[in-house]
Amino acid sequence: MSSLLSSMDSDVLRSFSTYATIVVLKMMFMSQLTSFFRLTKGVFANVEDARFVGDKKLVRTDLMVERVRRCHLNDLENIVPFVVIGLFYSLTQPALPTALLHFRLFVGSRFCHSVSYVGALPQPSRGLSYIVGVLATASMAYRTLSTVLLL
Amino acid sequence: MSSLLSSMDSDVLRSFSTYATIVVLKMMFMSQLTSFFRLTKGVFANVEDARFVGDKKLVRTDLMVERVRRCHLNDLENIVPFVVIGLFYSLTQPALPTALLHFRLFVGSRFCHSVSYVGALPQPSRGLSYIVGVLATASMAYRTLSTVLLL
Amino acid sequence: MSSLLSSMDSDVLRSFSTYATIVVLKMMFMSQLTSFFRLTKGVFANVEDARFVGDKKLVRTDLMVERVRRCHLNDLENIVPFVVIGLFYSLTQPALPTALLHFRLFVGSRFCHSVSYVGALPQPSRGLSYIVGVLATASMAYRTLSTVLLL
Repeated sequence: MSSLLSSMDSDVLRSFSTYATIVVLKMMFMSQLTSFFRLTKGVFANVEDARFVGDKKLVRTDLMVERVRRCHLNDLENIVPFVVIGLFYSLTQPALPTALLHFRLFVGSRFCHSVSYVGALPQPSRGLSYIVGVLATASMAYRTLSTVLLL
Repeated sequence: MSSLLSSMDSDVLRSFSTYATIVVLKMMFMSQLTSFFRLTKGVFANVEDARFVGDKKLVRTDLMVERVRRCHLNDLENIVPFVVIGLFYSLTQPALPTALLHFRLFVGSRFCHSVSYVGALPQPSRGLSYIVGVLATASMAYRTLSTVLLL
Repeated sequence: MSSLLSSMDSDVLRSFSTYATIVVLKMMFMSQLTSFFRLTKGVFANVEDARFVGDKKLVRTDLMVERVRRCHLNDLENIVPFVVIGLFYSLTQPALPTALLHFRLFVGSRFCHSVSYVGALPQPSRGLSYIVGVLATASMAYRTLSTVLLL
């Protein structure tokens, strides 16, 4: 037991835990942002929500709410691979500076992606931040597969 | 090798594995529920599905099916953070009763959330169960970051 | 520290890392496929994307793009449970051939699922591949719960 728990002595795993927790918290924040726009714009997906604020007619869609929801889904589609592949990668004993570079690039790219998406910044700002995140994850996947491959 | 495998001697990790598996199985059940409503209501998203039951006109949306799908997506958006942050949290050697409290609150809140959502219970039942889950995850994230922080 | 890192000496964990990485990369590929159809068909979800290719009227939906997106979401809904439950399962020290059977069945089923979905093959091809994946995950969940159960 103590062995796995003391795994947090590994600097790579500690930094991975830190960055993965931060980027997951960022993803959770998208839910709060959706709720914020739903409440301030009076736009709900469910009859019981609209009824709670007193107007059943509020069940409709809104461009801004849909934008935040697409951003949230894109987070899920990209952060899940980062977390899964990043964990295996961290177990392959990469050098700490290399690992930090991957984690920082990925997490930074997702923050840029969200700002670009929610702020509707002109392309290719969102596209480029998306690609940086994909490349960071793909690079960790390459290292993982070339180290542990057992089919 | 034996060291990680024997990590299941850790009661916190064992209870985390138990609760995480249960809540993930609950999430998987949402797919079955969607299929159930699609089949009983004759509402499909794909031409080949409608054709399989003999009526191409069945490609349409339905309020109940969309409700279950929103509930499923909300599960994904909240259970992924719980699983990721909960794993790191379990490695920070929290006291077992504290850890159990977090896991039970989260898993309980998600069951309440699903019942509120699928049953269209009046708000704030769904909102409150959602918030309890978020707070449990946020509390584990706080403990994780304050223990392992390495940026 | 070295103990967790040396966990990659476990053949079950190595093969799990391999298969999980492969199936997650497959899931990431769905994003590229969506982008491919969006670009070749001129179908975008955001004004700034349509503007980038020079035509604001391109903000609309398309049957093929929506099909790939449903396939991607179905991947998320099924691969997340596989990754979570598969990790716990790998820690319960299953026999390597049994573990390999589970991993191969799941990953194979998801490749069949994607081909069936994107290619719109007649049912029950997609339904059957979906069920094989669910059964593989459920079987690992059963083994995990019966080994580590601590409520």
